[in-house]
Amino acid sequence: MPVRLDRSSADFDQRFAAFLAAKREASADVEAAARAIVDDVARRGDAALLEATAKFDRLRLDASSLRVSAAEIEAAVKACEPATLDALKLARDRIETYHRRQLPKDERFTDPLGVELGWRYTAIESAGLYVPGGTAAYPSSVLMNAVPAKVAGVSRLVMVVPSPDGKLNPLVLAAADLGGVTEIYRVGGAQAVAALAHGTATIAPVAKIVGPGNAYVAAAKRLVFGKVGIDMIAGPSEVLVIADDTGNADWIAADLLAQAEHDASAQSILITDSARLAADVEKAVEAQLKTLPRAAIASASWADFGAVIMVKNLTDAIPLADAIAAEHLEIMTVDPDALATNIRNAGAVFLGPHTPEAIGDYVGGSNHVLPTARSARFSSGLSVHDFMKRTSILKCGPDQLRALGPAAMTLGKAEGLDAHSRSIGLRLNLS
Amino acid sequence: MPVRLDRSSADFDQRFAAFLAAKREASADVEAAARAIVDDVARRGDAALLEATAKFDRLRLDASSLRVSAAEIEAAVKACEPATLDALKLARDRIETYHRRQLPKDERFTDPLGVELGWRYTAIESAGLYVPGGTAAYPSSVLMNAVPAKVAGVSRLVMVVPSPDGKLNPLVLAAADLGGVTEIYRVGGAQAVAALAHGTATIAPVAKIVGPGNAYVAAAKRLVFGKVGIDMIAGPSEVLVIADDTGNADWIAADLLAQAEHDASAQSILITDSARLAADVEKAVEAQLKTLPRAAIASASWADFGAVIMVKNLTDAIPLADAIAAEHLEIMTVDPDALATNIRNAGAVFLGPHTPEAIGDYVGGSNHVLPTARSARFSSGLSVHDFMKRTSILKCGPDQLRALGPAAMTLGKAEGLDAHSRSIGLRLNLS
Repeated sequence: MPVRLDRSSADFDQRFAAFLAAKREASADVEAAARAIVDDVARRGDAALLEATAKFDRLRLDASSLRVSAAEIEAAVKACEPATLDALKLARDRIETYHRRQLPKDERFTDPLGVELGWRYTAIESAGLYVPGGTAAYPSSVLMNAVPAKVAGVSRLVMVVPSPDGKLNPLVLAAADLGGVTEIYRVGGAQAVAALAHGTATIAPVAKIVGPGNAYVAAAKRLVFGKVGIDMIAGPSEVLVIADDTGNADWIAADLLAQAEHDASAQSILITDSARLAADVEKAVEAQLKTLPRAAIASASWADFGAVIMVKNLTDAIPLADAIAAEHLEIMTVDPDALATNIRNAGAVFLGPHTPEAIGDYVGGSNHVLPTARSARFSSGLSVHDFMKRTSILKCGPDQLRALGPAAMTLGKAEGLDAHSRSIGLRLNLS
Repeated sequence: MPVRLDRSSADFDQRFAAFLAAKREASADVEAAARAIVDDVARRGDAALLEATAKFDRLRLDASSLRVSAAEIEAAVKACEPATLDALKLARDRIETYHRRQLPKDERFTDPLGVELGWRYTAIESAGLYVPGGTAAYPSSVLMNAVPAKVAGVSRLVMVVPSPDGKLNPLVLAAADLGGVTEIYRVGGAQAVAALAHGTATIAPVAKIVGPGNAYVAAAKRLVFGKVGIDMIAGPSEVLVIADDTGNADWIAADLLAQAEHDASAQSILITDSARLAADVEKAVEAQLKTLPRAAIASASWADFGAVIMVKNLTDAIPLADAIAAEHLEIMTVDPDALATNIRNAGAVFLGPHTPEAIGDYVGGSNHVLPTARSARFSSGLSVHDFMKRTSILKCGPDQLRALGPAAMTLGKAEGLDAHSRSIGLRLNLS
């Protein structure tokens, strides 16, 4: 049974705070294990990578068979349903179009003193894309990570994907092919992250690693952070639906369950000012669960982490939505745009009754890699920016140095950094 | 004696790789200690914070004296030299002007199918700014962190700064005042990071923590990452100077020493195609060291981590500069702009002989918080973007859902996520 909260009850603040603070993921203490694997691969390279793959994926490889061959990729593409490939292509094209608009502009300007300033964006040289194996191998996620990298201009895009018992999902290979991945290696876990970060004889190191993974992968990414860049650490997924009495209970229930089916740790929340709708949604969830293939997962998620929050009016929903800072926010009210404008914290908003999150998951064009676990308070979804970096530019001539130099020398001296001051003073014949 | 490398020698590649791989910082294993402090503050709040402050800063406070009062700040401002305050104001104004140009634009567009897409940027609600105590307390760094946050629109900006034995640097308080900091607490170390992340009765939690600190602070930031956002983990600072025979040896030596004086782990590198200049710079460094107040630090840095790299021509410097990925890159050649355009990896470039890095450190306007230790390969200097986040927007009507829905349903089914498909099918009467 989901949590039921009422904004007008006396103990609401306390119960809402407890709801927010509840942990949805056991933070398995896998750091020591991940560290041992990462260190071993850093030290022994391919040998360590191959041993770990034999151990964890039950797969004996040698260095020459680590890489997935062009023939294998071609065969995988041929094995896919044409309709599915067409859907992946539509997704790829729409993601590309959307992300092209994110390409940042360089800036160069001359200020009133004549100082030239600005910045320049460049793509990172190489990126590694982690793709989980098994049931969580989502071709859509391959596109969501690969396409922004290609749009940014990353020339070397390396995918790693474990193949437990030698099995690889053909759709994942097809998506990699469509997404412009340039190398694929059949390795996973902390050992794959270590190989991407430190490099081995077979796998050249990359500058940044992105993509979701299990607790070992997450721990390994934290460990190599600094040596390489990493994206966010993804937690379990969540949706917040805000609806008024015009909401369609069946559609809302379906959206809550689409979130819940991901993972028993996923979270689905409804905030509404309609007691009628709340009751109808709860009934519809129970009814739909009966015919859902992943009912066991979805009902566990809904029972353990689901929530229905009643508010007197939709304005009261705004601070609650900001505190929840949902990865996905669906608004199904009379004027969804107006409400969305007032909400600050959300990874993505889906406006109106005809925009189920699943459209955004696949073919909307925006990215489905979004900040989870309240991190939309301080971070954003994956974008072209994650694959580019900015170099700032400064250029003075003698006049500009004369104008700005004395103030800089004053600050250098005030901070006890005399060589800083001297580097200016020498040029101005002041020291 | 600095490392001397020659691009034309037979063992260059090997020696350059070893040079790049050399660690400049002992990675002190302070994680366990930091974790104990963070957990204690998370659990016991102010009490733990006050105890840690008594222990590490030799300062007994109670909850009511944690916050630096308006009167103290006013007194600090009065205690500063007017010329220094004026220099800080100039810096503040120039940083603000530069960073205003970074404000990102929202986007909203309708695609050919009629789907409305876009994104919206909002400021994070609150940010914590860590400022080290003691000799590394730099008022310029306070401005470099605070001003972008204010420009982004962060309304609550909380500074923490340790005051060992009760001492606070008046210039740091003055810079905080000029930079728009809204609260200041006299706490530091892992305990201050924990207070900002988890909140205490006195210090409300923030959404993101920025600013440099010692190994304990860095470890604490890693530990709270996810609960709150963090900026990069700052390493020791570095400069790369690329110069040809037109370079002024005295000026270059002064710039190398301005970097070296920061820290014995700092690194100063010269790449040149002029053997004459290389020799002159080495001589000038030795000469200038004789009269430098921080000569002990600077000479240790130069001897242990300094490098002079000879190349046949400046084109050969480009891949070396990209591999070094210097925090600061100064180019003093006949055509510095042309060379800069071809270098991909650098935190900031300083063009021409009249742009010593020290101008950028203080009053150029660009940010001096820049990626260190080769992380310019994948990350950027601090900017307004670090204090904003992006919410993506998607809106379909019935026609758009009909157009895109079937492809999304195909992908949902292919990924085994039937509830995803159903959330669309229900709306289209397809399930």
